[in-house]
Amino acid sequence: MASAPSAQLLEPLDVPPWTRTPGAPILTHPYGLPSSFESHVVRRAARQWPMPGAASSLTPLADLHGTLTPNGLVYERHHGGVPDIDPDAHRLAVHGLVTEPKLFTMDDLLRLPSESRIHFMECSGNTASEWKGPSGLPLQLTHGLLSCCEWTGVRLSTLLEAVGGSTPAAPGASPRWILAEGADAAAMTRSLPLDAILDRALVVYAQNGERLRPENGYPLRLIVPGYEGNTYVKWLRRLKVVDGPLETREETSKYTGLLPDGRARQFAFEMDAKSVITRPSPGQRLTRHGYYPVVGLAWSGRGTIRGVEVSTDGGINWQSARLEAPVRDRALTRFTFDWTWQGGPATLLSRATDSTGYVQPTREALVAARGLNSYYHYNGIQSWRVGADGSVANA
Amino acid sequence: MASAPSAQLLEPLDVPPWTRTPGAPILTHPYGLPSSFESHVVRRAARQWPMPGAASSLTPLADLHGTLTPNGLVYERHHGGVPDIDPDAHRLAVHGLVTEPKLFTMDDLLRLPSESRIHFMECSGNTASEWKGPSGLPLQLTHGLLSCCEWTGVRLSTLLEAVGGSTPAAPGASPRWILAEGADAAAMTRSLPLDAILDRALVVYAQNGERLRPENGYPLRLIVPGYEGNTYVKWLRRLKVVDGPLETREETSKYTGLLPDGRARQFAFEMDAKSVITRPSPGQRLTRHGYYPVVGLAWSGRGTIRGVEVSTDGGINWQSARLEAPVRDRALTRFTFDWTWQGGPATLLSRATDSTGYVQPTREALVAARGLNSYYHYNGIQSWRVGADGSVANA
Repeated sequence: MASAPSAQLLEPLDVPPWTRTPGAPILTHPYGLPSSFESHVVRRAARQWPMPGAASSLTPLADLHGTLTPNGLVYERHHGGVPDIDPDAHRLAVHGLVTEPKLFTMDDLLRLPSESRIHFMECSGNTASEWKGPSGLPLQLTHGLLSCCEWTGVRLSTLLEAVGGSTPAAPGASPRWILAEGADAAAMTRSLPLDAILDRALVVYAQNGERLRPENGYPLRLIVPGYEGNTYVKWLRRLKVVDGPLETREETSKYTGLLPDGRARQFAFEMDAKSVITRPSPGQRLTRHGYYPVVGLAWSGRGTIRGVEVSTDGGINWQSARLEAPVRDRALTRFTFDWTWQGGPATLLSRATDSTGYVQPTREALVAARGLNSYYHYNGIQSWRVGADGSVANA
Repeated sequence: MASAPSAQLLEPLDVPPWTRTPGAPILTHPYGLPSSFESHVVRRAARQWPMPGAASSLTPLADLHGTLTPNGLVYERHHGGVPDIDPDAHRLAVHGLVTEPKLFTMDDLLRLPSESRIHFMECSGNTASEWKGPSGLPLQLTHGLLSCCEWTGVRLSTLLEAVGGSTPAAPGASPRWILAEGADAAAMTRSLPLDAILDRALVVYAQNGERLRPENGYPLRLIVPGYEGNTYVKWLRRLKVVDGPLETREETSKYTGLLPDGRARQFAFEMDAKSVITRPSPGQRLTRHGYYPVVGLAWSGRGTIRGVEVSTDGGINWQSARLEAPVRDRALTRFTFDWTWQGGPATLLSRATDSTGYVQPTREALVAARGLNSYYHYNGIQSWRVGADGSVANA
């Protein structure tokens, strides 16, 4: 094929208006902001909350790409509003059953060896809207209590070494737990099994490269990769080693799951493997027949994602999706399934399998196991209905 | 050791003012912002620029953590200001020596298979301040034309497949190059060797999970991992396959290096291995004798970082620093060296070695090879002087 004709095609290109006039000066925003054309990409609340400080807002997953969540869009869940903490006045107490209890300043913490890791964070109430069947809500409101960031801080184990270690339990005594408490008006307080989290919990001061945002725990937060978001205690002011769980409000009246037989699942910390298709998703529209990449996110609180299968016929046939490398431990993994939309109706589903072999269940299987009084830890397979007109719905 | 006494120590904890009153409501900022206590962490210009749209601003590296740069702090370098582009009106032409030239809408590009990768971006003018010796400037102004992000978009090779591939060169003809042009008022234009970049160049629409920011190329940008930042053409509107470099303004009068013998280094695309200590760095102060982690960043445009050595005595003795995993290809790598400050003066240096075996040179070696008429591609070993009073200076 001769190259000369095609070389000339499209030329001269149209010169758009923004090429004809100088653009905005440097440092218009010393701290930058998104384009005004992206003003719809914001956190949103799923409902009116009776108290504005005890509420949540959700990450716009359908408009995001890759695996990281920018700090401005990380989901929020507060129980007493967002405190405005002076980092110079903030202290972290590490005490209880330890050799040398200490109060740490932020400067003290910055002088300890640090570590950075990319992990997801998911509220255990995420996707609770779907327990009773398709809610009709769009992705942001069904799955948006989910974010993924690079976290930087000090290992919990390093902090415990800095206080001489926890004092050994007496023979036959209970294993050590650790109480984490926030400096917010709710004094958010959770108990955690110390041995189980010691290898991976971090006390973090930075998120995605910069210091934590106020609504994400500035200046200090605990993260426990793979555990429910509520254990990522924000505005962290206390870590107290204790000899058992303290049965705080947030682990008795809340963050437990009522089972059909009247018992409650308590301390169900780990987030089960889950996946969801982010594009196409409800509110979007397929505009032409032909190739569409079906893209989504998969994650597990117990390790890595081993595979994701996609169905376009409501779950009759399943095929493997491509996982985008690197597949990180306890982090969001992006998957893509190459689909050709023929123009008819379709029902799109995704199903994750994690490195333990656990397979994301159907809603029916979840309900059979846990009944309909549960609220937390819903991880059922999500389906999106594509209409013949290209519309997409949660139906 | 009995646990009872220490268990009681520090209690009751002081209750800070922010625990005594409800915090700010949810969604105070639907798109979140940093704490007011971090208002000093912003981009800054190194000097007054005669034209506000042809200027640069720098990333505050000394205040960052981990390896990613939040979008609000990614460095800027513009030649005609920041255009405000309507993504629905934006088009990318892929033409020249290709089989089926095409205009792509943003929607077209979003329907192609995508990929996400973490890579650094560095202006070739970064650290030019140090060619003639220590400038006295702080880290933000010496090394801040450097950022690292997760980029999401379409492989250049995928785009070329979508236009049927480039037409084969005639026997004996020159290898193919590709011209990238921006839609800004400067119509920023660079030529790139096609075969050399085809395996790694991406046409990206998202950065750190969200769409590109206006000052970083919204809605579309080329990235060529490892190449000088100027080739990451922003506001990308044209990719034209050609049979040789077009010798544009930005690769003749600029972005070349004048050598002592009067010749110019042209098309020195790859950023050489480099490292710098970010903490402690000028303007900071060591407040107490004892342990300090010396932390910094290392990177190479030719692959991964194999090692970083640190000297605390001005380069007489060198010891290996710890590299933080994962060490990514053409991305920032964080290093830490465990140092005990005895209280006297010290001179801190870092020296990177990359996966090709290349070792970051001294300033003297760079000047001997390239003279003092060069401006771009300065990657000399940087030294920070610690005074007996704990002050840190670029001296």
